Amino acid sequence: MTFFKKLEKRVRARQTYLCVGLDPVWGKIPEHLPHSQEGLLEFLLQIVNETKDHVAVFKPNFAYFEALGPSGMEVLQELIQKIPPEIPVIGDAKRGDVGHSSRMYAKAVFETFGCDAVTVTPYLGHDALEPFLDNPDRGVFVLCLTSNSGANDFQLPDLHLKVAKKVREWNIYGNAGLVVGATRPENIAAIREISGRMPYLIPGIGTQGGDLRNTLFYADDGSKIPYLISTSRSILYASSKEDFAQQAGTTARKLQDQINLCRSSL
Amino acid sequence: MTFFKKLEKRVRARQTYLCVGLDPVWGKIPEHLPHSQEGLLEFLLQIVNETKDHVAVFKPNFAYFEALGPSGMEVLQELIQKIPPEIPVIGDAKRGDVGHSSRMYAKAVFETFGCDAVTVTPYLGHDALEPFLDNPDRGVFVLCLTSNSGANDFQLPDLHLKVAKKVREWNIYGNAGLVVGATRPENIAAIREISGRMPYLIPGIGTQGGDLRNTLFYADDGSKIPYLISTSRSILYASSKEDFAQQAGTTARKLQDQINLCRSSL
Repeated sequence: MTFFKKLEKRVRARQTYLCVGLDPVWGKIPEHLPHSQEGLLEFLLQIVNETKDHVAVFKPNFAYFEALGPSGMEVLQELIQKIPPEIPVIGDAKRGDVGHSSRMYAKAVFETFGCDAVTVTPYLGHDALEPFLDNPDRGVFVLCLTSNSGANDFQLPDLHLKVAKKVREWNIYGNAGLVVGATRPENIAAIREISGRMPYLIPGIGTQGGDLRNTLFYADDGSKIPYLISTSRSILYASSKEDFAQQAGTTARKLQDQINLCRSSL
Repeated sequence: MTFFKKLEKRVRARQTYLCVGLDPVWGKIPEHLPHSQEGLLEFLLQIVNETKDHVAVFKPNFAYFEALGPSGMEVLQELIQKIPPEIPVIGDAKRGDVGHSSRMYAKAVFETFGCDAVTVTPYLGHDALEPFLDNPDRGVFVLCLTSNSGANDFQLPDLHLKVAKKVREWNIYGNAGLVVGATRPENIAAIREISGRMPYLIPGIGTQGGDLRNTLFYADDGSKIPYLISTSRSILYASSKEDFAQQAGTTARKLQDQINLCRSSL
């Protein structure tokens, strides 16, 4: 089953547009868990287990596992294997290199680590994205307008629109999406006009303070999955005590409800 | 010792501007070597050993190790540990993410994998590059104008010049450089005018057909290390037989000489 079919099935089954990012940092993981490969995996699996009913996709961020070296990458691999198969996984890797190197990154994310989708960076252009897009069964979210302050340096005012336009052209298998931050909802309407229908992966709600209502309003494209609303830290570190997983589940449920309430009011 | 001091010492000692990329691919590694973690490491260490006298820096590309999973990342870690300490290592990772994730990538490349320098992608702007640049003892090569066809999609005509300008502003510790492809030497003069003095990491000579003479001419900034000329496949796969390492060494020496001859004729 392709990533987007799997996602559609999931969204329909659970009525959720929530993407939970898995970005483990030692200093924030509850202290009662062992500071080891096993402790890290246990932390993540408990989060997955308590939030999964409210989640459309999980999104492990490669940076946090890579920082822990080969053993961290082992945890990443095992984590992805243990996520229930009906929940798609986006490998948040922000990869992109010249063609032959991008092919290796696509192999890493899709085959070696078994992700259903990936985030990629557009700076190197078409031949850097093609090795990812060439997998019709996998999803490819291209950075367009990110949620950080640095978006002002190059992406704004125009580059992000050029990216949206090109990704639309390059989307021959219908497996592309865009990463669009919630911190600038006023820009989303213009991006939507250019990109046409494709799902947006939207970070920036939660700790980064994005405006949910306006974001959903401008990102809507009338399709079944116009967007996935992504949050990491507000769920992962909802509590630093033994109830961390239950608190994560409660926070995920609240956010799921909040998104659905917002959707129904638009 | 900082990356650039170490590099300067190395260039002075060996009179070489050659960067050898380490991008291992199973199908191209001599068949007599065992198809295992040990075989891969042996291949790379023999290449390192036979080319090292002609090399200013080694540049392992993370993509090729990541595709092999956690065991590939172990090989990468061990390889970097075994490169002679007087030869700096550039981690060719093309990383870049929002601030807190970039901090993890910087930790991965500089601490976990022990690289002296890194390649990064500028799309996410200043807060994505700062966690790398904030390490005054490490080198940070920012993608500016790459050697692939996709450079036409976003980097040209103007974005690469904006990147050069910003990197110059952000280079407060003097540890930044730019990645500038040799496939468009006519663009290098304009980049140099904007960036001022900083080393360029220049791929695209060799299999990609860049013009060495014009590249060196336009990239020169009158400093001790205006550039590093990077090549991977033409050296790594100079022979698929048992003499692969000697052939790699011969190819590296020839390229070292060719660069020096070109320099002296300008």
